Amino acid sequence: MNGAQSLIRSLAGAGVELCFANPGTSEMHFVAALDDVPEMRGVLGLFEGVVAGAADGYGRIAEKPAATLLHLGPGLGNAMASLHNARRAYTPIVNVVGDHATHHKQYDAPLESDIEPLAESLRGWVRRCNSAAELGADGVAAVAAATDPPGRVATLILPADVSWGDGGQIAEPAPAGSRDPVAVATIGSVADALRSGEPAALLLGGPACREAGLLAASAIANAAGAKVFVETFPARLERGAGLPAIERLGYFAEQATAQLEGVRHLILAGARSPVSFFAYPGKPSDLTPEGAQVHTLADRAQDVIGALADLAEEVAAGTEPTLTPASRPAMPSGELTPQNWADVLGVLLPEQAIISDESNTSGTLVPIATAGAPRHDVLALTGGAIGQGMPVATGAAIAAPGRPVINLQSDGSAMYTISSLWTQARENSDITTIILNNSAYAILRLEMQRVGAELGGPAARALLDLSAPQMDFAKIAEGMGVPASRVRTCEEFAQRLQRAIEEPGPHLIDALVPSLI
Amino acid sequence: MNGAQSLIRSLAGAGVELCFANPGTSEMHFVAALDDVPEMRGVLGLFEGVVAGAADGYGRIAEKPAATLLHLGPGLGNAMASLHNARRAYTPIVNVVGDHATHHKQYDAPLESDIEPLAESLRGWVRRCNSAAELGADGVAAVAAATDPPGRVATLILPADVSWGDGGQIAEPAPAGSRDPVAVATIGSVADALRSGEPAALLLGGPACREAGLLAASAIANAAGAKVFVETFPARLERGAGLPAIERLGYFAEQATAQLEGVRHLILAGARSPVSFFAYPGKPSDLTPEGAQVHTLADRAQDVIGALADLAEEVAAGTEPTLTPASRPAMPSGELTPQNWADVLGVLLPEQAIISDESNTSGTLVPIATAGAPRHDVLALTGGAIGQGMPVATGAAIAAPGRPVINLQSDGSAMYTISSLWTQARENSDITTIILNNSAYAILRLEMQRVGAELGGPAARALLDLSAPQMDFAKIAEGMGVPASRVRTCEEFAQRLQRAIEEPGPHLIDALVPSLI
Repeated sequence: MNGAQSLIRSLAGAGVELCFANPGTSEMHFVAALDDVPEMRGVLGLFEGVVAGAADGYGRIAEKPAATLLHLGPGLGNAMASLHNARRAYTPIVNVVGDHATHHKQYDAPLESDIEPLAESLRGWVRRCNSAAELGADGVAAVAAATDPPGRVATLILPADVSWGDGGQIAEPAPAGSRDPVAVATIGSVADALRSGEPAALLLGGPACREAGLLAASAIANAAGAKVFVETFPARLERGAGLPAIERLGYFAEQATAQLEGVRHLILAGARSPVSFFAYPGKPSDLTPEGAQVHTLADRAQDVIGALADLAEEVAAGTEPTLTPASRPAMPSGELTPQNWADVLGVLLPEQAIISDESNTSGTLVPIATAGAPRHDVLALTGGAIGQGMPVATGAAIAAPGRPVINLQSDGSAMYTISSLWTQARENSDITTIILNNSAYAILRLEMQRVGAELGGPAARALLDLSAPQMDFAKIAEGMGVPASRVRTCEEFAQRLQRAIEEPGPHLIDALVPSLI
Repeated sequence: MNGAQSLIRSLAGAGVELCFANPGTSEMHFVAALDDVPEMRGVLGLFEGVVAGAADGYGRIAEKPAATLLHLGPGLGNAMASLHNARRAYTPIVNVVGDHATHHKQYDAPLESDIEPLAESLRGWVRRCNSAAELGADGVAAVAAATDPPGRVATLILPADVSWGDGGQIAEPAPAGSRDPVAVATIGSVADALRSGEPAALLLGGPACREAGLLAASAIANAAGAKVFVETFPARLERGAGLPAIERLGYFAEQATAQLEGVRHLILAGARSPVSFFAYPGKPSDLTPEGAQVHTLADRAQDVIGALADLAEEVAAGTEPTLTPASRPAMPSGELTPQNWADVLGVLLPEQAIISDESNTSGTLVPIATAGAPRHDVLALTGGAIGQGMPVATGAAIAAPGRPVINLQSDGSAMYTISSLWTQARENSDITTIILNNSAYAILRLEMQRVGAELGGPAARALLDLSAPQMDFAKIAEGMGVPASRVRTCEEFAQRLQRAIEEPGPHLIDALVPSLI
């Protein structure tokens, strides 16, 4: 058995079923070995940002890691933005990066470059494999590192000769890591803060954004008269009818400051202390309200759900959470606007949908329009590196083949990872991509005003403008095998969305929704 | 004057006229400042790999640096593959990477990541700007570093507060670096080797691949009875009628080994010692013929052209170079094949063309078919990180607006940086993209055989296959505003190519050319 075969068998034994791959010559033995291990399936992406982003989407939904297969340093470079978002989502990923054969590196061949510094910048786990005999164990260690709470990108650097070398050994899976319980004293101290009568707010992140966390947090907030928020960009947020509708902390500092105004006790449950996404001249970066005491109920790696349950028992015994009743907005009509398109989505959102949300400025009203829709998951832009929406949708669909995936996708962001559509067509995934086509980097128009830079000049404005030429995403999608259409009115949008949801396989709707700004 | 304004004025003063940009919030003051400095023009790319690759193509043709503008660590990550190729091409680039404001970094906001390790892995020059007052001087230092022979990627990390801070100072341009002359003794020693009567070969790289170097090398080879080759992937190779037709060293080790067989003196003129692109089980990585003595006439940073001229004077006084006569292949007819499509190109290649060549396996016969065509430049895949062809074409066209650019582009490689087409449409550049659409990673089919991995399995074969669905590049191009068509025969191809060359602006031809393998 060669190294590659032992690696894939060991990964499969540890529960890794999928490998999102964009291989090159140095990975050919890994690719060949996939035929020996039917327990692992290779899914081809045409660009490493798609591969890594799909592994992120898969991990968020499957709650276990997929592997990637990347080609040397440049392949890892192409994946870095997606891996950055995965890092910020704490998604478990076994990130396999092929490298030149060990004896070949000294020759500084054209594709030679430093891999470790890139991998290490992800602040996860990095190991270079040194021998075929150890490779199976390296793979199992990578799975353990990836899944150890709170989850991370574990990078395995795989020289070609280690892949093709003989003497591979299959390694036994390692026991899964568990979340550390929160100390009773911590629960008590947070309970005291909630009972103090001073204004308090809970901020939920990570596992607390799932059903159990939301229910406990809502009950606690009701009992204590506290506010409760979800972090701005949750990796996976459950919402819809029958769940508490908990507002997300705003993206802009002014919004978050207003939401948290007057709070004296800020209680973090799996979330980090709120900070401004960007700095702005003369404005604070730390959004903790002045004078507020910050209580960490549970950090991301701890048993957040258990801590919320204990806290609920302590302060909210007998108090019910507030559940959102089922409701849909009225179907709007006429030309699409930044306001009305979300209502069409709210009317039609199917049962058990997964929303991959990179709608940016165009998505402002989606949370309201879909609050009472059937239960669904929202996967948000955790790390702010745009180009996430399409690959994450691609991976999520593969993790949950029975569930409809809706990708709310800004036009500018779509172009970083547009070849995701080809993988969606190849996999015949049930993904409906809704392009919010406003022909602008609208967020940057807003941001330019906010940072105080003059909006006036034509040279500056041109760099935020995508209208010349206007992209036709329907054509682009059809070119990659995804049926598509362009819509301008609510009626057209509703008709196309309904059909896309009903028909199996991927679809794209290029929705001409004007920019907010 | 704020920092950004002083930076752009200082860069423009040092001759940097172009900024290929994909900005974000932290770069808004830089963007706004472009309106104050009309000497620098911003060119928008929809993905950082396009931005950096365009800067590479621009630098290779303009022989001076463009600036980039990238958004934080993830933006630099997206640019890494293109910057890797630029590094291997020794292209001067002033690589501006925006960062969070200095005081904001401590908060580890979502987009925070390590920038320096990525930039440093490019083995060029890296500086983090610390104050608006020093920023102009930092910019000038970056230009000096980028252009100091042999040329490199100079990365300037630009925190947002340094951009928006007051007190910017315009810095005077620094004197240009020059190439060190080669010692007389070195010339003498190489001349002795050439006169020894033992088999010798010259290997040309870098500046030696331009007219003066090729002419001198051809005369030397003629006088000494030596072989002469060009490095496998030259950054810029001049060729065509009236120039010596010098064979490139083969990509596959077997080819290069055969070309260099029996050589006792290998003379490097701006090139590195030949090594195998990848390692293969049981095959050598070092392609220097056994027992051959390697003579470095001039390294990449030295005055290669001067050294070749001196050597020619020493050993080839009165000997003429061999000039290729003007000739075109006969126009082929019928279905396109891997063999005949290159002849269509050879028949129609216009005067003064720039070929951005990422044709990979499909391009095997292009050098023969175009050897006697009108003089042209070829820009090759220097670093092996695929996705280079389209962005390099984009930048080359902007550097030479009067010259027709022909991008020979493999289908798989095209998908890494496909949004280049949008920038081409926006800039109305005279670029004809010829997609060699064989619906496969054909190079990997070859490589899988060569590395000894079994080609047999369907799982492995599927990861090298792009036929399900087959991409329609004409639709994709039209979706980005580039007129396009699909062709299957030599007649259709010739007609479309002729029209694309004649009509201003970009065009794409999706040529269904079957795979070699």
